[in-house]
Amino acid sequence: MDFDGFFAEQLQTVRDEGRYRVFTEIERKRGAFPHATRYVNDGTQNVTVWCSNDYLGMGQHPVVLEAMHKTLDQCGAGAGGTRNISGTNHQHVLLEQELADLHGKEAALLFTSGYVSNWAGLGTLASKIPGCVVFSDALNHASMIEGIRHSRAEYKIWKHNDPEDLDRHLSAFPAGVPKLVAFESVYSMDGDIAPIAEILDVCEKHGAMTYIDEVHAVGLYGERGGGIAEREGLMDRITVIEGTLGKAFGVMGGYIAASADLVDFVRTFASGFIFSTALPPAVAAGACASIKHLKVSSKEREQQRDRVATVRRKLDMLGIPHLPNPSHIIPVMVGDAHKCKMISDWLMDNHGIYVQPINYPTVPVGTERLRLTPSPVHNDGDIDRLINALSDIWSQCELARGSVAA
Amino acid sequence: MDFDGFFAEQLQTVRDEGRYRVFTEIERKRGAFPHATRYVNDGTQNVTVWCSNDYLGMGQHPVVLEAMHKTLDQCGAGAGGTRNISGTNHQHVLLEQELADLHGKEAALLFTSGYVSNWAGLGTLASKIPGCVVFSDALNHASMIEGIRHSRAEYKIWKHNDPEDLDRHLSAFPAGVPKLVAFESVYSMDGDIAPIAEILDVCEKHGAMTYIDEVHAVGLYGERGGGIAEREGLMDRITVIEGTLGKAFGVMGGYIAASADLVDFVRTFASGFIFSTALPPAVAAGACASIKHLKVSSKEREQQRDRVATVRRKLDMLGIPHLPNPSHIIPVMVGDAHKCKMISDWLMDNHGIYVQPINYPTVPVGTERLRLTPSPVHNDGDIDRLINALSDIWSQCELARGSVAA
Repeated sequence: MDFDGFFAEQLQTVRDEGRYRVFTEIERKRGAFPHATRYVNDGTQNVTVWCSNDYLGMGQHPVVLEAMHKTLDQCGAGAGGTRNISGTNHQHVLLEQELADLHGKEAALLFTSGYVSNWAGLGTLASKIPGCVVFSDALNHASMIEGIRHSRAEYKIWKHNDPEDLDRHLSAFPAGVPKLVAFESVYSMDGDIAPIAEILDVCEKHGAMTYIDEVHAVGLYGERGGGIAEREGLMDRITVIEGTLGKAFGVMGGYIAASADLVDFVRTFASGFIFSTALPPAVAAGACASIKHLKVSSKEREQQRDRVATVRRKLDMLGIPHLPNPSHIIPVMVGDAHKCKMISDWLMDNHGIYVQPINYPTVPVGTERLRLTPSPVHNDGDIDRLINALSDIWSQCELARGSVAA
Repeated sequence: MDFDGFFAEQLQTVRDEGRYRVFTEIERKRGAFPHATRYVNDGTQNVTVWCSNDYLGMGQHPVVLEAMHKTLDQCGAGAGGTRNISGTNHQHVLLEQELADLHGKEAALLFTSGYVSNWAGLGTLASKIPGCVVFSDALNHASMIEGIRHSRAEYKIWKHNDPEDLDRHLSAFPAGVPKLVAFESVYSMDGDIAPIAEILDVCEKHGAMTYIDEVHAVGLYGERGGGIAEREGLMDRITVIEGTLGKAFGVMGGYIAASADLVDFVRTFASGFIFSTALPPAVAAGACASIKHLKVSSKEREQQRDRVATVRRKLDMLGIPHLPNPSHIIPVMVGDAHKCKMISDWLMDNHGIYVQPINYPTVPVGTERLRLTPSPVHNDGDIDRLINALSDIWSQCELARGSVAA
C-alpha cells in the first residue's frame, strides 16, 4: 500500500471540504496579554488575541510566574518519572490537596491534561464497574466521548441539557444496573450552562453516579472559583468533578476531585494515569498558586464579567448577531464556513485581531462562528478596535444585522 | 448500587494481592540530583534517587532551566489554548523543527505526553487507514496497546523481539492489506534492545509501515541522541519514530517524527492532539534547549555509560544478580513480590536509598526486581552506598548470590 499517497489524498479531501486547519503561530507577550507576536511568512505582526482560553489572564499573573520560577530553581525542570516510579513530587501532593479543597471533596487526582483526565477518568470508571451503563449528554466534549467509547461500556446519548430525556433513558434500565451520568457545566462552543440541579434530581432518583466536566468554569464561577456547581451550591451532590489547569488557571494539566476511595480507584486502575510521566513540579506549583489566588480574589472574575458585558453591549448596538448565553463565551454567528474563515483572515491581516474561525465538525454546518473570549486583560481600546473592525467587515460582506440571533 | 463500597472492596483486593501502590513523595533538589527530600510521616528525609527516568540529569541542566526561566518571563505560564485555537506558540514550532531534524524526518508533532503520542498516534493511524492490521510486539508499552485497542483495528501480537515470528504473522495476510508494525527500541523493564534491522528487513519484505517507540533511548543513544535507530543508521527506514521529552530530555511531553504528510494526517485526525491544550511555551523551550545540547554534547552519554558499567561491575563483584542487557537499565532481580517491597523499604528507611520495587503486573510473577538507572549525576560515593547497602540486605535476607542471573 502507498501510505503517503493515502495520507496526501485524505488531506486533499479535508482541504477540498474547507476543513483543513492552518495553525496560527504566535508568541504571547508576558505582561502585555492579550497582545502577542504572530509569526507569518518570515515576518512578524503584532496581534490581539480574542480567542484564548487563558480566560482570566492568569498565565501572566505574577503569583503564578513567581511560583514557577521558584520551583524551577528549587526542583529543576521535569518530574523525573511516573507518579509511582520517583515522579510524585511534593508539589503534586500540595496541588491535589488544593483541588480537593476547592471542590469540597476528600481527594483529587492530577493528569497531564484535561483530555486525559476525562478519557482516563470516565474510561476507567465505565470499564471497571461491572455492567455500568453510561448516559452521556449529546454535546459532551471529544475527550469524554473517547473515554466512554474506550471503556466499551454500554452507553446512551441523552438530549443536550434535557433532564427529562435523561430521566427517560435512565428509566429504561432496572434499579440494580450501575449508572454513570456524564455532562458538562459550561459548553464551550455555545457557552450555555447545564441545569445541574435538575440533572442531579433525576440522577438521585435513579441512584446514578454523576460526572461533571467543569473545564470552562473552574476559576471563573463560584465564590472561590470552584465552578458552576460551587456557585449553585451543588458540589456535594456530584460524584466526580473534573477540571483543567490549562484554561482559567493559566497553566496546564487536568484533574478529577471525588471521594477518597473513588480517586484511589482511578489512581490504581487508570492506564493513562499510571504510565504517564507526572507534570513538571514547576507546572504544578504554578497551577497551585493560581488556584490559591483565585480562591480569595474575585477581582479577575468581576473584571471578566464587565469585559464580557461590554463586548456584548457593543455588539448589540451594532446589531452584530451573537448567541445569547449566561456564560463568558460570546459566539458571533456567521453561519457560513467560507465567510467565517474569510472574516477571520481579514481581521488578522487588516487589524491584527486574532479570532479563530470555528467551523464544522466542531460546530454544526450553518452555525459557523467567531468565538470571542473577553478577559480582564482586554482594555477598552482593544474592545473598540474589535467592534469597529467587526462592524466594517459586516458592512463590506453585507452580513445580516439585527437583534441578537437565536 | 453502592459505588464507594465497590471501590473500597476492589482496593482491598489489590491490597490483599500486595499490588497496592503507595507513592513516595519527594522534592528533587536542583543542583543536587540525584539527591532529594522525601516527605514522610510529617517529617522529611534526605534520599538518593536510583530509579528516575531523568536518565542524564538534564532536569537540572543550566541550559534547560535558563531557557525555561527566559520563556516564562517572555511568554508567561500556559499556552492559552489548543494548537488550533490560539495555542500554537512559536516555541512549539521551533521544537517540532528540532525534533524532525533529530530524527532526519520531514516533520514532527508534539503531544502532551509520550503516552498520548502513542495512544493518539497509533490509534489514529490504525483506525483511519482502511483495513489496517496492526502487528504489536508482545512487550509493547501500555500506551501503545491502548492506542491499538482504541483503534478497533485487527491486531496480532508477535513474540517479543522475534523477527521470524513477525514474518510468520505478516505472511498470513495478503500483500494488499495495509500493515502497521509497532515495537520499541529499548524495553524499559528488562532493558533489552530490539533487533531493529532484522525487524525492518521483514517489514520491508511485506510492505509494512513501521512505528518505533524510542522513549527509553532518545537523548541516550546515537551520536546526536536520536536513539538506537540513529546509532544503527536505520532512522530513514522507519516510518514513524515516537519519543518523549520527559525522560533523558528531562522535561515533559511526547512526539512523533515522520513524513510531512503522515504528520499532517495525524495532526488533522487525532482527537487526543486536536482537543488538548498545548504544552506551556516554557516547557517546549526547555525541551528544545535540552535536545539542542544533547545533539552536540556526548559528555552526558559517556558519563552515564561509565556509571552504568561501574554499578554493573560492583554488583558482579558481590554476586548480586542482575539481568544482562545492552542498555542503561539495570534490573536487580529479586524474584518475590514481598521481598522486593521489603528490600525497597529497608533501603529507604535505613540508607535513604530510593529504588521503587517493580512487581506484577508490571513484570511477570517470579521476576520481581529493583530497577536501577545510574546517571551522570550519581557519584562514586552514591554508588558505593548503594552497593554496600544491597550487599548488607542480600546477606540479611539470605538472598541468592552467584554469577549474573539469566
